[in-house]
Amino acid sequence: MNDRSELLSQLPLRENLRGLSPYGAPQIDVPIQLNVNENTHPLPTSVVDAIAQEVAKAATTLNRYPDREFTELRELLADYLGHNLDRENIWAANGSNEILQQILQAFGGPGRSLLSFVPTYSMYPLLASGTDTQFIAGTRAEDFTLSAESAAAQVRTHRPNVIFLCSPNNPTGTALGLDVIQAVYEVASETKAIVVVDEAYAEFSLANTKSALTLLDGRQRLIISRTMSKAFGLAGARVGYLAAAPEVTDAIRLVRLPYHLSAVTQATAIAALKNIDLLLAQVEEIKTQRDRIVTRLTELGLKPSVSDSNFVFFGGLEDPHTIWQGLLDAGIIVRDNGIKGTLRVTAGTESETTAFLEHLATLLGAQK
Amino acid sequence: MNDRSELLSQLPLRENLRGLSPYGAPQIDVPIQLNVNENTHPLPTSVVDAIAQEVAKAATTLNRYPDREFTELRELLADYLGHNLDRENIWAANGSNEILQQILQAFGGPGRSLLSFVPTYSMYPLLASGTDTQFIAGTRAEDFTLSAESAAAQVRTHRPNVIFLCSPNNPTGTALGLDVIQAVYEVASETKAIVVVDEAYAEFSLANTKSALTLLDGRQRLIISRTMSKAFGLAGARVGYLAAAPEVTDAIRLVRLPYHLSAVTQATAIAALKNIDLLLAQVEEIKTQRDRIVTRLTELGLKPSVSDSNFVFFGGLEDPHTIWQGLLDAGIIVRDNGIKGTLRVTAGTESETTAFLEHLATLLGAQK
Repeated sequence: MNDRSELLSQLPLRENLRGLSPYGAPQIDVPIQLNVNENTHPLPTSVVDAIAQEVAKAATTLNRYPDREFTELRELLADYLGHNLDRENIWAANGSNEILQQILQAFGGPGRSLLSFVPTYSMYPLLASGTDTQFIAGTRAEDFTLSAESAAAQVRTHRPNVIFLCSPNNPTGTALGLDVIQAVYEVASETKAIVVVDEAYAEFSLANTKSALTLLDGRQRLIISRTMSKAFGLAGARVGYLAAAPEVTDAIRLVRLPYHLSAVTQATAIAALKNIDLLLAQVEEIKTQRDRIVTRLTELGLKPSVSDSNFVFFGGLEDPHTIWQGLLDAGIIVRDNGIKGTLRVTAGTESETTAFLEHLATLLGAQK
Repeated sequence: MNDRSELLSQLPLRENLRGLSPYGAPQIDVPIQLNVNENTHPLPTSVVDAIAQEVAKAATTLNRYPDREFTELRELLADYLGHNLDRENIWAANGSNEILQQILQAFGGPGRSLLSFVPTYSMYPLLASGTDTQFIAGTRAEDFTLSAESAAAQVRTHRPNVIFLCSPNNPTGTALGLDVIQAVYEVASETKAIVVVDEAYAEFSLANTKSALTLLDGRQRLIISRTMSKAFGLAGARVGYLAAAPEVTDAIRLVRLPYHLSAVTQATAIAALKNIDLLLAQVEEIKTQRDRIVTRLTELGLKPSVSDSNFVFFGGLEDPHTIWQGLLDAGIIVRDNGIKGTLRVTAGTESETTAFLEHLATLLGAQK
């Protein structure tokens, strides 16, 4: 134990935090960063300019608290999502992590439980712990898929208060069929559970994949979580949002900190949404690189999962850590999620993708 | 019950939220807004420009996650506070509400308790509820002061895990003597409690009032909470921060959401801190208006509390609500905290203060 953790252990930390380390992927400054599923394309200059202008306008009244209801932002997000949604269906927060935390503050908590299906987004158990919600780790098939029958049976067995369905799933990349969400919601209707579909990567989905937004109408306890971090290329702006029945947003209003979304955050998101076509122009290019990675990894004898996202999860590696380190030595960082025989790589620009694929092929060749 | 609250009641809300209404002062658009203790002076144009420039720079890498450790911001905040603090002593979040929430997530929670002395900042019980911490409402003297003996005795009786001392206190405006904080800390040392001094309004203190920052050295469980919302005139930017022992910031790292502070928020705060002299130039002017309000209210036969803040709490009103409504009808909004015979008014610009004092005098005259 070093001095600092010795000192930390002297503080009256709550019991479930003792001995933990802070969450977070390493922030290592290397030329090619493909480890946290960012959009690696910088924003177009015209969008940078639009953000600066909108923020400059907001700064003239920055001495005042922001619009606590962020009305304009909710309207623009509703317009973007379509599906006959309006601003009453929308809520936003500082990243989708805060969205999920607010959902657990409203519907989870002591004596309540959250079910998700692992491996999945590694923040879920931490968000559960942070809100004193019991985390139940449901299971997937060996290939990391999840069938409607299995999901529904697990919900029936565990009777959780909240269910998080990550679709496309992180870190494995594949979206759930709507039948899975429908089956889970059906059981959840009997047990009065909240069903959250985390669609952080939805914009990268394959052509035949459908969003759970198509299921919202008439389902009061269904919540779709989205983010501006990925397809929009705004990870640094920290804007997550949800679509749900208006009364769900009323429930969140009971737990949100007042003025949680700053005037600067609202201005940034508004400027981005007013330039949505420019921002989303890169999605197709990223999907092209993603599909190229899947094809090439298969040629290399590896086993990539079907990807509806801007990253590819692949198995078939004998020694993932050595490959991870070899790539890092070449200035390329990917993600080792600690799942046996696998790594995860973000689909970057064409040249980043080329660099990754070439170095990977070399490293695999050297292992033979 | 209207349709929407009827629908809300159908959702599986956690029990302690049922029947509640969202927190928040009314956001009413009137010409003179003296109800939420904002700095009513807009930012100087050069600071607006500096913020726009710093955000434009940040926007060029907004596709990437922000610096999770907001290192530059912590350095600038440490420089500002002085007292030999460095970046290891500093933590920041989206408003001091989030700072306080993170403190309760780390040191409060189920089976633990928070003591504060009412009337005080009305968010404290809500933050306690939101983190399932039991809120204990300690008491003050009839004139709303709090002595070292009384505070220490109450800590000894209730043995809370966390104590919030609001100094200057909101809504009553008076700072605590350092003897009160020392006495509370002494008892808390026996009971291993965390002591938080919320100094949101510290920059407006009277000349002889000392900050609890002077007590930090050697006190591991003492935390000073501050904000950029008030003296800095940045309520819209939502930046709160704390100063404490480095291991306290390590504790907060265990509960913070990763990347909770956006690149845009960091850029805004950094630009402001680089222009600190310009921002704080209005503090003296606001204190002048504050003192003028105290003098004039006394002349009018009312009973203003001693104010170390940018607002004045005053008693001696027979019918505060009628006065509140009369001011609102004249386009001036002040705060009715629901404390018998009292109102609270923010010290605004010279002309806003004049308008408030003149209308108040008229309304009081009409009541005679």
